[in-house]
Amino acid sequence: MRNKPPRKTRPPFRGKAPGKPGGKFEKKSQGKPRENSRRSGGESWVYGIHAVQAALGNPRRKLGRAILTARAAEAIGPKLLSRVRVEPADAEAITRLLHPGAVHQGAALEAEPLGAMDLDEALEQAPAGKRRVVLVLDQLSDPHNVGAILRTAAAFGVAAVVVQDRHAPPQSGSLAKAASGALEIVPYIEVVNIARALDQLAERGFWRIALAGDGAEPLTKVLPDGDVALVLGSEGDGIRRLVREHCEAAAFIPISSQMESLNVSNAAAIALYEIRR
Amino acid sequence: MRNKPPRKTRPPFRGKAPGKPGGKFEKKSQGKPRENSRRSGGESWVYGIHAVQAALGNPRRKLGRAILTARAAEAIGPKLLSRVRVEPADAEAITRLLHPGAVHQGAALEAEPLGAMDLDEALEQAPAGKRRVVLVLDQLSDPHNVGAILRTAAAFGVAAVVVQDRHAPPQSGSLAKAASGALEIVPYIEVVNIARALDQLAERGFWRIALAGDGAEPLTKVLPDGDVALVLGSEGDGIRRLVREHCEAAAFIPISSQMESLNVSNAAAIALYEIRR
Repeated sequence: MRNKPPRKTRPPFRGKAPGKPGGKFEKKSQGKPRENSRRSGGESWVYGIHAVQAALGNPRRKLGRAILTARAAEAIGPKLLSRVRVEPADAEAITRLLHPGAVHQGAALEAEPLGAMDLDEALEQAPAGKRRVVLVLDQLSDPHNVGAILRTAAAFGVAAVVVQDRHAPPQSGSLAKAASGALEIVPYIEVVNIARALDQLAERGFWRIALAGDGAEPLTKVLPDGDVALVLGSEGDGIRRLVREHCEAAAFIPISSQMESLNVSNAAAIALYEIRR
Repeated sequence: MRNKPPRKTRPPFRGKAPGKPGGKFEKKSQGKPRENSRRSGGESWVYGIHAVQAALGNPRRKLGRAILTARAAEAIGPKLLSRVRVEPADAEAITRLLHPGAVHQGAALEAEPLGAMDLDEALEQAPAGKRRVVLVLDQLSDPHNVGAILRTAAAFGVAAVVVQDRHAPPQSGSLAKAASGALEIVPYIEVVNIARALDQLAERGFWRIALAGDGAEPLTKVLPDGDVALVLGSEGDGIRRLVREHCEAAAFIPISSQMESLNVSNAAAIALYEIRR
């Protein structure tokens, strides 16, 4: 294991992310702690081998220290680690640093949330030549579900995942772990108002589909040829009425009558697969 | 909230599940604590509104007490609760009863694991007239993933989920919560040897497909018309070589080169959707 001496100028941490003014979409600086933030208790840490590797490999990330077991440091490799100060630790010490139950695989990295990106920027970055897909998550709060959705979104080339700033998990900890590196790939865009974001997507030519167990038609019947915004609701409450009213269609995935619903990340995975088929 | 007086004869709890001898598949009584069992620390409890409702509604379940908040008792309803002794409690007391981080929604139910079923019984119960599908999980240990897979398996009419007894989460706690009632619907079959179970599925006419990122062909190309056993491996290690050698084909789900893999429950969901399409 290679330990780098402490840097003379430690990278700034917890500073305000540079807000880009004049974006067409309303947005929120993601560097600023939020009122409902749970950044204490391990929430400003990225952990797990894949998530730490991906954050280290992302030049846009502002990073603090990496706390690693010898084995994790070896798995991540000295090249990626040359960016940060490495502090060796045993697994128990890392467990104490994070929240109970965090599956850290011996790797924890202090990471400032990525700076805010607005939806137009994200849409411009989307590769040309194929349908653009945006996922809109209406008050999904479980970081495991949102992380798994980000991972699948990256796997199916989604242009952006839009969440409501006050009702979404912060960009680190369990979210980054479940996303398995996808936070570095898919723009995670926090907006103040989901319904307004849907209006703006409509102005840019997106067909808005609410995915809901009580939708009117199966997803395959409502898919257009062009760009699609797919809206998913929370497991408990589903999509809020106002948000649903901002969609052109409500579609379902056909399942057995024995089950009421699918897990939301599994529903998202099936929908993205169907859209990209 | 209705509290029932304590029963004179409390239902037996933690007794050995009745093993049915002479099954063609090897099996293991699921009532007997296992060497790697983590039944302490909340693992003999079913929790979460959906999971508790489903266990209460399953006559095959042997149940102990239900520990409920007033709100959860109202949500579950007196009819289902008439089977068990209800102990009112506040949410904090229920949290202390379970493992840290358990999302119990005010409902915990002592539940003995379902008695062992063998694979032939499960296959006989599968509805006629459509392709039978069996999921085989090779050493998947994360209860959230296995629970989500059970839920999706129930949603797509899977005949059985086969796991290796020593390397699978126990049938309660986080597994039951993530399965959201599906444990009561899909036979969860613990076998000693996965490769042998695959041989036995082949004898019964199943086409065995290993789902793996480095598979030879996309899933759509290898799907036969008849019965299918779909094999999934753990996130870290994938499908073991010996298990993979017991499959006719190794198939992948086409994803972007930006991501290495999908979350295993999302991969299972997409595969089941494709198989049932």
